[in-house]
Amino acid sequence: MTHHRTVLDTALRTRIPAIVDHALDPGLTEEVAARVAWSCIVEPGDGIAGRLVQALGAAEALAAIEAGRPARQAAEAAGVTRQEWDRGLQRWRPRLQPDVVRGAVEAAAVAGARLLAPYDARWPTPLRDLGAHAPLCLWVRGDLAAPMRFRPAVAIVGARAATSYGEHVAIELSSGLAMRGVAVISGAAYGIDGAAHRAALAAEGATLAFLAGGVDRPYPAGNAQLIDRIAVSGAVLSEAPCGGAPTKWRFLQRNRLIAALADATVVVEAGWRSGSLNTAHHASELGRPLGSVPGPVTSAASAGCHRVLREHDARCITGVDDVLELLGIATSAARPDDHDARHTDDRARVLDALSARASRGALDVARRCGMSVADVEAVLGLLSLTGEVAAVDGGWRLAAATAGR
Amino acid sequence: MTHHRTVLDTALRTRIPAIVDHALDPGLTEEVAARVAWSCIVEPGDGIAGRLVQALGAAEALAAIEAGRPARQAAEAAGVTRQEWDRGLQRWRPRLQPDVVRGAVEAAAVAGARLLAPYDARWPTPLRDLGAHAPLCLWVRGDLAAPMRFRPAVAIVGARAATSYGEHVAIELSSGLAMRGVAVISGAAYGIDGAAHRAALAAEGATLAFLAGGVDRPYPAGNAQLIDRIAVSGAVLSEAPCGGAPTKWRFLQRNRLIAALADATVVVEAGWRSGSLNTAHHASELGRPLGSVPGPVTSAASAGCHRVLREHDARCITGVDDVLELLGIATSAARPDDHDARHTDDRARVLDALSARASRGALDVARRCGMSVADVEAVLGLLSLTGEVAAVDGGWRLAAATAGR
Repeated sequence: MTHHRTVLDTALRTRIPAIVDHALDPGLTEEVAARVAWSCIVEPGDGIAGRLVQALGAAEALAAIEAGRPARQAAEAAGVTRQEWDRGLQRWRPRLQPDVVRGAVEAAAVAGARLLAPYDARWPTPLRDLGAHAPLCLWVRGDLAAPMRFRPAVAIVGARAATSYGEHVAIELSSGLAMRGVAVISGAAYGIDGAAHRAALAAEGATLAFLAGGVDRPYPAGNAQLIDRIAVSGAVLSEAPCGGAPTKWRFLQRNRLIAALADATVVVEAGWRSGSLNTAHHASELGRPLGSVPGPVTSAASAGCHRVLREHDARCITGVDDVLELLGIATSAARPDDHDARHTDDRARVLDALSARASRGALDVARRCGMSVADVEAVLGLLSLTGEVAAVDGGWRLAAATAGR
Repeated sequence: MTHHRTVLDTALRTRIPAIVDHALDPGLTEEVAARVAWSCIVEPGDGIAGRLVQALGAAEALAAIEAGRPARQAAEAAGVTRQEWDRGLQRWRPRLQPDVVRGAVEAAAVAGARLLAPYDARWPTPLRDLGAHAPLCLWVRGDLAAPMRFRPAVAIVGARAATSYGEHVAIELSSGLAMRGVAVISGAAYGIDGAAHRAALAAEGATLAFLAGGVDRPYPAGNAQLIDRIAVSGAVLSEAPCGGAPTKWRFLQRNRLIAALADATVVVEAGWRSGSLNTAHHASELGRPLGSVPGPVTSAASAGCHRVLREHDARCITGVDDVLELLGIATSAARPDDHDARHTDDRARVLDALSARASRGALDVARRCGMSVADVEAVLGLLSLTGEVAAVDGGWRLAAATAGR
């Protein structure tokens, strides 16, 4: 099947530069325009389209599917089988219409959304790890440079149906990361996502949101104001064209972008089937460090977090320091030190054998603690220097303060 | 230095059979008696004594330290250096007194405690994994066969300062294990230990307690009745002789016995420096499966559990099934199934593209979800069979029940 007109008619082509943020290399106009068209035609994460575009370039791949046949051999050379080609073509054909692409471009222009494509120096390179499933382009509200500039970045994700415990932890982690110069990536949803974004903004930190639908359609509506603030201070991104609805499929695919852009992913609170487990799965598949915040095992809201700890071998995250460790950033903040645990065994044994009431001789102490008299006397000498024992009536007694240890 | 009388004088030797539970092989009397003496002379976990007894036998090793010199060469052949020999001798000498041993034997007879030594068929073989640090003998109140018979066994340990959350989880795990025929081992302390024992008893399950002091000195006193009940239904064990005080040192050494006897160890609730982390450490060193129950990261009472998850790579335990898995026992109880997650992608995409209000044609749906018309029609056919969509006005609409999914 052939078309008499192309998806990207001349009138439409002339509108593309308006949504691209910089002086467009004329040699790239066609390629960028074709990527815009592709992003309107396919659903996110379409691996067949990804391989065609990778192998042939967006413009040639678009011409090939419009022509229907001639490029089949080229497609096969790109590793797309005949069956995949046919399946792809049937899938894309219903949207191979100029008005589909025109609608998205016009909506983007109206919303002030701009296009970020892989040839751009600001294209976030971590997304390349997605291979054929990398987004064909990104629609952006805000700073096009933010995705690459906001480094290191941690994805803080979790359930919409969060408890006050989950939101509290999300806020602690996110504000702690923001204060240490770590950007927070999330999905702008209710619950954990929203708490993470808000805490980062409150700490004047860097934060990015990936939406499932078009960036001109803030979702959920109740977070529209939050999404606006993220766009002003950082960026709101989506691979779905403007006007696109946030479907369940797109939510799942959106999660792969969050996992891929972040240097590490932390699930804060998630039920057994929370969508955030999908983000954790993507992070794990990509080999990105993955953390999970435990909660009470009696709380269904944490069951997904425990699942991630078990099934994905995620790190147990109890605070900001653990997240920094996940990123490979050394923390100066010391753990409660283990000085007490390093008490020499002998010291503990001698203290065990002393009384706060009765005075005991070194031999008596040696018998009680099973040490030599010489060793007991040496330890008693040290303990009297630190004031932990007192010499009384020719023997030794625990000092009052020591007795309560 | 030499002694004119031996630690085990004849009068004392004759009392030994009274605390041994079966017809004593006359050839073993001397060996058992010597082990009794050793257990009164050394502190638990004394590796030098352990190596000497392993290499020379308890009687010969005892004669050697009583003689002071002649066996030094034998000791060196047993891998005990000259320095260790001297250090050991100085340590043991203050207790090398017949009245020390006699006191312990008499206290055992009074308390009805009996002796379990390694030559006995009922000796719990898992303790052999402790090598030179294995106990020289065990003092038992209750069933001498219980330690070997109560299999599989799980150590349920945790802090004395437990929260109601921790005690709740200990009870759930312990009663669940008891009902599945798994024995519960713990330390009879307040908090998690006590909750674990009580729940096992309430479920008419098998439970064992290791004490730090002598089995004739129930500690803590508030759990004396519980300890009595454990002795009646199972066994209460200690390597410390009767009359021995529960010192801090002995608590730490006691923990290695809990870890070694159990097939797996689970820390239920523990602060950052809880003694139960010491048990976890022993389990880890012994290569025994180790689990830890997470709690809120905001709860200091769970900080030690999270530490174990991180530092010892313990399994995250959320319920009895996880513990059975730790033991390598397959559980029939199914996890909440992942049927929803296996919804085919196509199905989700078509449902995404349908409305509960407006009827939509297959081409419209295909455009909305980015699938081919043929695939959409196939999925719609299936969905109409399950009643999830309805054919209306020449198109398709979500059924009312489906819309709320």
